[in-house]
Amino acid sequence: MFRQSFHELILATRGRGLVEFTGAVEQWIADNHFRDGLVTLHLRHTSASLLIQENADPDVRRDLDAFFARLVRDGDPLFVHTAEGDDDMPAHIRTVLTTVNLSLPLHAGRLALGTWQGIYLWEHRTHPHSRRVTLHFIGE
Amino acid sequence: MFRQSFHELILATRGRGLVEFTGAVEQWIADNHFRDGLVTLHLRHTSASLLIQENADPDVRRDLDAFFARLVRDGDPLFVHTAEGDDDMPAHIRTVLTTVNLSLPLHAGRLALGTWQGIYLWEHRTHPHSRRVTLHFIGE
Amino acid sequence: MFRQSFHELILATRGRGLVEFTGAVEQWIADNHFRDGLVTLHLRHTSASLLIQENADPDVRRDLDAFFARLVRDGDPLFVHTAEGDDDMPAHIRTVLTTVNLSLPLHAGRLALGTWQGIYLWEHRTHPHSRRVTLHFIGE
Repeated sequence: MFRQSFHELILATRGRGLVEFTGAVEQWIADNHFRDGLVTLHLRHTSASLLIQENADPDVRRDLDAFFARLVRDGDPLFVHTAEGDDDMPAHIRTVLTTVNLSLPLHAGRLALGTWQGIYLWEHRTHPHSRRVTLHFIGE
Repeated sequence: MFRQSFHELILATRGRGLVEFTGAVEQWIADNHFRDGLVTLHLRHTSASLLIQENADPDVRRDLDAFFARLVRDGDPLFVHTAEGDDDMPAHIRTVLTTVNLSLPLHAGRLALGTWQGIYLWEHRTHPHSRRVTLHFIGE
Repeated sequence: MFRQSFHELILATRGRGLVEFTGAVEQWIADNHFRDGLVTLHLRHTSASLLIQENADPDVRRDLDAFFARLVRDGDPLFVHTAEGDDDMPAHIRTVLTTVNLSLPLHAGRLALGTWQGIYLWEHRTHPHSRRVTLHFIGE
């Protein structure tokens, strides 16, 4: 029988960097005995992203952040929107270059993630923040 | 009881830049009394994007466009696909760097948007266009 | 009556470049007589992307790859994660700059694709790979 369910995760960040939360999504699925359906994640912010990326070598996350820091420079004189700090407009752009939306099939109680895929929150601001992710399930 | 619904929005752009249409999506939801479910938006074009971004300070949109104009230069001699104008291949690349797909949970009649999030069509061509966005709802 | 269905496509790539597979998705839809609903595609890898882009002029795909090769250089000394080759970290970054998730409304048996839109797998590694895409349908 079809049903749906909503949940909100609140994730604390320690400033710029990637925070894996695959486990928290899987826990919500297990607690509710969801079997087959579609899981949607939406991040309710404009200066952080949702990301599916490699969960093995931490150097991948280090290189990701190094690349983005070079591509979108804090304090770039191009930017007019600077009232909230040198890292604010770069944080919006980093969000635009990635995404705040993910949709994952769930089959036999397991998310359709590949072996090396983890679900991350990517904080783009340099200071710690509290970030809210809305979870939605529709299925059986 | 579960149901689904389809709709198409036609949005006029005035050339390169961001057009907010959160209100049109919310109007469709209100008109149909959708309560809980998943709202999917798909843009049927390859030289414009869908975007969720800050809806407060217009300088954010100005800086976004300035950054992308510098990152993907009109008339870059790298490009072979130039028959439709200097801004055409950059428009495809800007679309690839962003997205044409969004999925938003709807809970108690409200989209799961953050306080500062708006839904935008980002026109990447320099001339005005008419753009079609397919809306889909599944839920209760 | 609502139902859902899962499928997995296995796509062979010949190294870096775009592989269209719109036809394989449409075939799955036709074989199962899906009419109205939501089709979700998830790529189970972190060094390749899913993409909706222009299916007419092959120069568009050539220019896309040329732009990304210049933006994210193989062997860039910035990268620490190099054990799997010069093209590995760039492949992760190219994936992050695009996406591994797509959601497409299906109406009257037809995907809501625009006239010029095709569904592509974008291989970012230089060597051939076998890539898995999970398909999910929910609807009628």
